[in-house]
Amino acid sequence: MSEPAIAVLRSHLSGRWQSGDGRVATLFDPTTEAPLATCSTAGLDLGAALQFAREQGGPALRALSFAGRGALLQAMREAIHAEREALIEMAVRNGGNTRGDAKFDIDGALATLGYYADLGKSLGERHFLLEGPPENIVRGGRVQGHHVRLPRRGVAVHINAFNFPAWGLAEKAATALLAGLPVLSKPATSTALVTYRMVEVLVEKQVLPPGVLSLLCGGVGDLLDHLGPQDVVAFTGSADTGSRIRGHRRVLSAGVPVNVEADSLNSTVLAPGAADATYDALIRHVHTEMTQKAGQKCTATRRILVPRDRLDEVIADLSERLRGVVVGDPGRDDVNMGPLSTAEQRRSAEEGIATLLAGGARVVFGRPGRGEPRGVAEGKGYFVSPLLLVADEPLQASAVHDLEVFGPVSTLLPYDGSVAAAEAIVARGQGSLVCSIYGDDRPWLEQAVLALGPYHGRVSMVDEKMADKAFSPGMVLPGLNHGGPGRAGGGNELGGTRGLDFYTQRTAVQGNGPLLARFLGAAVE
Amino acid sequence: MSEPAIAVLRSHLSGRWQSGDGRVATLFDPTTEAPLATCSTAGLDLGAALQFAREQGGPALRALSFAGRGALLQAMREAIHAEREALIEMAVRNGGNTRGDAKFDIDGALATLGYYADLGKSLGERHFLLEGPPENIVRGGRVQGHHVRLPRRGVAVHINAFNFPAWGLAEKAATALLAGLPVLSKPATSTALVTYRMVEVLVEKQVLPPGVLSLLCGGVGDLLDHLGPQDVVAFTGSADTGSRIRGHRRVLSAGVPVNVEADSLNSTVLAPGAADATYDALIRHVHTEMTQKAGQKCTATRRILVPRDRLDEVIADLSERLRGVVVGDPGRDDVNMGPLSTAEQRRSAEEGIATLLAGGARVVFGRPGRGEPRGVAEGKGYFVSPLLLVADEPLQASAVHDLEVFGPVSTLLPYDGSVAAAEAIVARGQGSLVCSIYGDDRPWLEQAVLALGPYHGRVSMVDEKMADKAFSPGMVLPGLNHGGPGRAGGGNELGGTRGLDFYTQRTAVQGNGPLLARFLGAAVE
Repeated sequence: MSEPAIAVLRSHLSGRWQSGDGRVATLFDPTTEAPLATCSTAGLDLGAALQFAREQGGPALRALSFAGRGALLQAMREAIHAEREALIEMAVRNGGNTRGDAKFDIDGALATLGYYADLGKSLGERHFLLEGPPENIVRGGRVQGHHVRLPRRGVAVHINAFNFPAWGLAEKAATALLAGLPVLSKPATSTALVTYRMVEVLVEKQVLPPGVLSLLCGGVGDLLDHLGPQDVVAFTGSADTGSRIRGHRRVLSAGVPVNVEADSLNSTVLAPGAADATYDALIRHVHTEMTQKAGQKCTATRRILVPRDRLDEVIADLSERLRGVVVGDPGRDDVNMGPLSTAEQRRSAEEGIATLLAGGARVVFGRPGRGEPRGVAEGKGYFVSPLLLVADEPLQASAVHDLEVFGPVSTLLPYDGSVAAAEAIVARGQGSLVCSIYGDDRPWLEQAVLALGPYHGRVSMVDEKMADKAFSPGMVLPGLNHGGPGRAGGGNELGGTRGLDFYTQRTAVQGNGPLLARFLGAAVE
Repeated sequence: MSEPAIAVLRSHLSGRWQSGDGRVATLFDPTTEAPLATCSTAGLDLGAALQFAREQGGPALRALSFAGRGALLQAMREAIHAEREALIEMAVRNGGNTRGDAKFDIDGALATLGYYADLGKSLGERHFLLEGPPENIVRGGRVQGHHVRLPRRGVAVHINAFNFPAWGLAEKAATALLAGLPVLSKPATSTALVTYRMVEVLVEKQVLPPGVLSLLCGGVGDLLDHLGPQDVVAFTGSADTGSRIRGHRRVLSAGVPVNVEADSLNSTVLAPGAADATYDALIRHVHTEMTQKAGQKCTATRRILVPRDRLDEVIADLSERLRGVVVGDPGRDDVNMGPLSTAEQRRSAEEGIATLLAGGARVVFGRPGRGEPRGVAEGKGYFVSPLLLVADEPLQASAVHDLEVFGPVSTLLPYDGSVAAAEAIVARGQGSLVCSIYGDDRPWLEQAVLALGPYHGRVSMVDEKMADKAFSPGMVLPGLNHGGPGRAGGGNELGGTRGLDFYTQRTAVQGNGPLLARFLGAAVE
């Protein structure tokens, strides 16, 4: 009788809260392993939910201008902001986040909603985007072609990862809603508490018209079987699941576009001759990327390339920083790294560490295992201690380039300091989300940015002139592209208006030049 | 001894001509059914061919500026143009093309090469494109983000359709080469003679550096198994094959981007109250789309929406035009429509016609069958007569919206003249390459362009002011997007610089604003 009640997370589909009545999934506190909530999607009519979104949510959004959709995003931001403290507390409990980790997620969500709200406002009373100037088909402009980006007439299905329950919802929804598409969002079940509460707040306050934002808490069920040719799927998670979605029978037969953000062996490269301020930024950023959210970020740095003659120095400086990390109960103020989010993630990280060690890497800081987490019951919680490795022969150590250990683990890779060697090592990752380059030799930097760029969706360059202002590379900015080629999924998200492309159809409209210019609101050229 | 020698089509891989030695495919003359050539890819080392292209062709192209790559395209255009008469003759023999059909294909190839040669020249000495203005990350522009489009470090694999052996090679190669990617092109085996000769000319005249353009004549073998994360595949053909490529194990595991142009049930819509000149253009264009290349164009009009009260008039006017079509030996001057290109295509078209007739359509002009082709031996050749159908209840006639009969066959669909009804019917095609709209009621046209746009990659609007200058909708222009959502494959080709996007990686580069502006050649804002 004195046990705290366990919450039941419902789904919000077809304009109402619904709960499945079959197999139930349980959400845990990864620090105590106590159950927090359950949910089930068994038996829910997901085809009807998609149809409701297409028929109610789509027209409601398309009736609004960009400014009107931006105002919805602003209202979402405000409603969620009012719940910020409660959300942080949920993220600590359900995600194993420190307060800092939780804010990174939740404030990231708020900032992204705000950015796209502002973008909507700046795009004004238009309902769709023009893409580039018109093309003359007949000399003199009597017959012209314009390119427009019209909102697709379907639903944006968003399948998110466990590590960013707030930001994942917000960043995908902001772009889709601004483009004019209703969203059905499915958070990862294990950490869905934060997402659930965000949507609950939006429903309670009636922030959005019916059908504009649906929520599916629990298993994905037969959702994909109901997709149509105007729908899209954006997925963040493992490359395996991404491939399964891309290869799904209905996705292929209906030609449903799929955006994937998946495994990424992100690199950091120290250039030869970096100034002290630049070098210090690298040490600071690697420390952040290894320990923030216990290294559970798709943009976290996994591979650190350093000139061979600076390896010992980097090991010493990173080790000193990592010695200051206190792992334990993330609700405590004197703890700065929590557990991994699930038992499965811990198991996977432990196996991954063993694979790296068997595949050419050695430990230079830390010990594989849970360590002695502060304020935690003996043997409880999904803890993994920070671990710094070195692979002395990077090109021989395949696992370091193939296996993303999703935890506080990075590997140092000594190289000869040439751009060519850096490219050969970085390319072994087969495409990543982000690469960061630290240096002050300008010709070297220019070469490196262009040589490493094709393997990444984003490259961050840090030099001494702006090292104090540089963001850590794992920080995803709404105005810059987020995605990466190859293993990273080949996706493109965010990047300002670029993020809307996935949700719109590029249509060339050819015909009477002056008339089309009037229809489309384009300047005649 | 007096039999003409049958040509053997080799493949040009790893910088040299090669021929497989296993199962042989045979190319036929579709008018006489005489064998023309054979080819085999059995046993060829396709992994080595891709690697050669990556290692030799890629660096050679990337070392050139856009202007340099444009000059290569111009040299290709000139070399192929010098062979124009021989190519036309081959297209007549191997494709069943009339001379007009052959020119449409070959001159389309030349025009597209010319367009992209000019585009390269206008892009000048840059090596990659900037995408949009920089984004300020820190106030004042000290830290900024730029978006660049860098050439991928892989190979562009092009798998083309049988209907455009010249244009298919050229349009895909022009965009990839201008972007900086080497190409491995695989024409459809059945009509590969024209493609083969084009590449042979380029090799003979040493127009391109080694590895820049490879040719695979015959079966695709294990080509896809050798793809890497920086390669891409662009495919034109059936939706089934497109799905197989998208779902291929290696394509999924390496995250290889795939562009598909597939089945498309393109529509033409007659608006209420169209002026005579507008109406006449529709009749003229439908006639062209039905009979040009015997209706074997992915952009040909399959569904013709006409206000119910004008149905009889349209039937009468189209029938009058179609009565003038002489089917027969395409080498004769008095013939204006040839056979389908293969026995398999004829069988498929005959089955498709039977399915349409069983599924709610009736014949209003022509008779299913081969007719009496002029100048052709009794029973020989893959002929299909032009056939105009009506589906009196368009929303009940599923086959009309689902089945692309790839021949001289179109179906009239009466509707009530409202944009909403037109959209409901057109949308049943689940996404198409092109829609054409003929009318003069401006509010109606504006509504229709925006309502039908999301289902298409291109919309052509014709009104009386420019009806005499309007191209038939099946004409693909290099400056306008070519592709369509859903069933049409979700692809984007051509469209000027937009066509380069598929071959490049979008990379956000963040860092020291003024320094990046210098590296990337961007104006500081």
